[in-house]
Amino acid sequence: MIDFNYYTPTEVVFGKESEDKVAQMVKKYGGKKVLVHFGGKSAQKSGLLDKVCNLLKAEGIPYVTLGGVVPNPRLGKVHEGIDLCRKEGVDFILAVGGGSVIDSGKAIAYGIGYDGDVWDFYCGKAKATSFVPLGAVLTIPAAGSEMSDSSVITNEAIDVKRGYNNDICRPKFAIMNPERSYTLPPYQTAAGVTDIMMHTMERYFSHDVDMTLSDNMAEGLLRTAKECVFAVLKNPEDYRNRAQIMWAGSLAHNGLTGCGRVGDWATHQIGHELSALFDATHGAALAAIWPSWARYVMKEDVSRFVRFAVNVMDVPNDYSDPEGTAIQGVEAIERFYHAIGMPINIPELIGRNVTDAEIKEMSRKCTRDYTMTMGQFKKLTAEDIEKIYRMAN
Amino acid sequence: MIDFNYYTPTEVVFGKESEDKVAQMVKKYGGKKVLVHFGGKSAQKSGLLDKVCNLLKAEGIPYVTLGGVVPNPRLGKVHEGIDLCRKEGVDFILAVGGGSVIDSGKAIAYGIGYDGDVWDFYCGKAKATSFVPLGAVLTIPAAGSEMSDSSVITNEAIDVKRGYNNDICRPKFAIMNPERSYTLPPYQTAAGVTDIMMHTMERYFSHDVDMTLSDNMAEGLLRTAKECVFAVLKNPEDYRNRAQIMWAGSLAHNGLTGCGRVGDWATHQIGHELSALFDATHGAALAAIWPSWARYVMKEDVSRFVRFAVNVMDVPNDYSDPEGTAIQGVEAIERFYHAIGMPINIPELIGRNVTDAEIKEMSRKCTRDYTMTMGQFKKLTAEDIEKIYRMAN
Repeated sequence: MIDFNYYTPTEVVFGKESEDKVAQMVKKYGGKKVLVHFGGKSAQKSGLLDKVCNLLKAEGIPYVTLGGVVPNPRLGKVHEGIDLCRKEGVDFILAVGGGSVIDSGKAIAYGIGYDGDVWDFYCGKAKATSFVPLGAVLTIPAAGSEMSDSSVITNEAIDVKRGYNNDICRPKFAIMNPERSYTLPPYQTAAGVTDIMMHTMERYFSHDVDMTLSDNMAEGLLRTAKECVFAVLKNPEDYRNRAQIMWAGSLAHNGLTGCGRVGDWATHQIGHELSALFDATHGAALAAIWPSWARYVMKEDVSRFVRFAVNVMDVPNDYSDPEGTAIQGVEAIERFYHAIGMPINIPELIGRNVTDAEIKEMSRKCTRDYTMTMGQFKKLTAEDIEKIYRMAN
Repeated sequence: MIDFNYYTPTEVVFGKESEDKVAQMVKKYGGKKVLVHFGGKSAQKSGLLDKVCNLLKAEGIPYVTLGGVVPNPRLGKVHEGIDLCRKEGVDFILAVGGGSVIDSGKAIAYGIGYDGDVWDFYCGKAKATSFVPLGAVLTIPAAGSEMSDSSVITNEAIDVKRGYNNDICRPKFAIMNPERSYTLPPYQTAAGVTDIMMHTMERYFSHDVDMTLSDNMAEGLLRTAKECVFAVLKNPEDYRNRAQIMWAGSLAHNGLTGCGRVGDWATHQIGHELSALFDATHGAALAAIWPSWARYVMKEDVSRFVRFAVNVMDVPNDYSDPEGTAIQGVEAIERFYHAIGMPINIPELIGRNVTDAEIKEMSRKCTRDYTMTMGQFKKLTAEDIEKIYRMAN
């Protein structure tokens, strides 16, 4: 067990009509001039954007808007946001959407008070020390950005997708109304649940196996997400199960299930390269990689995979064959991914095999030009990562 | 499922030597003149108090000290603290100890800026609007006050013990070093674990049974606490298991396991009267009452008790006899309480039966002179509460 800090200051307002409180929350946290940041047409079509803007107006809080954030959010949009905020004197970012919108908002909030290019933080050149306060109105449960210390941005000029973690970016508040996720298409719903589960699994597959409480919490969260997804795929307006998934998304990535241990995160890094190169949906890219990652690293600690198989995937424990039980856990999650419409390899993700050149290119980028290893459960070199891409191909 | 707010801003610093950071944390949260608040001799004997004071000194932060807080902390000490803080211009409370010390510190922090008697908040006459920032250095895992919105004070003049909940009292930081709980005697260790489990069970026994995630988290926490206590009773210096218990204590009462549902809390109220009248250890009083409460209210929703029996107490589910399974769950926790040295009724708690007059007096006080019911799973009148005391007698 390692020492840990746990810091989740975000005030969560969860439930039906919770967005009614948006203006009073902005006020509570000191917003005087707001950037309302959003994605595509769904926030407009659903009426959520109008509702939020009208509530700000009614409370006398001036705002400007910036839409057009896309999945795997782009640095170009972030630069546009920073320029707008500086020009307009924005002192509060209100992100209305899912992880991409919140992550883009976080990047803008880092950038406003920074002299250099905000990309410096994402590529490791600098550490952010200022952050304009940000609140979130969540519509897509997946990334967990509404409570997390992380954001992920794609630099479209160089096809590089990078995450940056810093406690100062944790949102002041998160407004979560599960009804706002009713219109999510099945593929996005399933990819979101995959991402939620992966945020938990990246923390769970650790060599710090003596943190029983984190294990038990993680397994409870994973079982919840795994069960609830079928109900909402069958009935998209199932409030109860949409709510479980939405709340699971926050708890999966606010730090709770990682207390006391070092997580792995290799699957995220390997998946990011697929998203950057093929603009693949983040959650789906994780599903395409994880089974291969699991088979490749399993021997580092088979017992961990046995625990996962038995306690999460309901595989009967064959005590005489731990490796067999572990493998069955991986096969069980492959069946689960297929059952919810997720890929389990790269061809299923992007519709074709990746070429050898693409594998080499992704492995090079993933290891920052061969200067770093990825993951902790097994520290993966570019060569290891190439092998995993090939296994998943 | 009910709408909910979740707000746990406390910055947790968890691990060996975490108290080394105490002065920098006080500084981070703006403390310029500190009250170091503590209990009896153990904080002095262990050297923790000296260590904390020396660290403040080294950082150039002036402080005054106030010790002598007792279990079931008294209003008289709170008044003493308020006077001292006003006289000395204290702007930060540092509570070094367990729940009693933190609760006493919270009451002082409410009182400093309040014109009336701080007891007004606890007896429901007024709502607190100011609170001097407070940090905690935890030594006894039990009450969860280090992250919670609650504090409980005994007004010794009238033998009344009352809790008060308000988000403004959540500590700024909590420093938790499991090694600091090594010297806890077995009885206090067991009572602490009982309290931790009861904080979770008071939220779990609810009619909002559709919050799967909270259920799964609660069960994971309960199983952890239930397993880990035996290890530390056997070996008080078992870091791993002391750590599970300490962290479980915080998560049990910071709100996490209650998200989306109305809790019960009758056992706490009924137990408080025993603590107020007989100065009984809080956790032990809960153990003495809960089995009788459970049998008395079970028919309100037997399925809830079946789930508890099976998922927490490892009782085999007799599908043909839900009530039998539910009862077996209660019997299992009675065996568990006995195994860790806790009472399961009032005579085992205080060494004698309570008299009829005492039962009537406690029931009267518990219902605020017959003006209120207690609990939510079943709303208990004074008559119900009398019956529960008799069952436990």
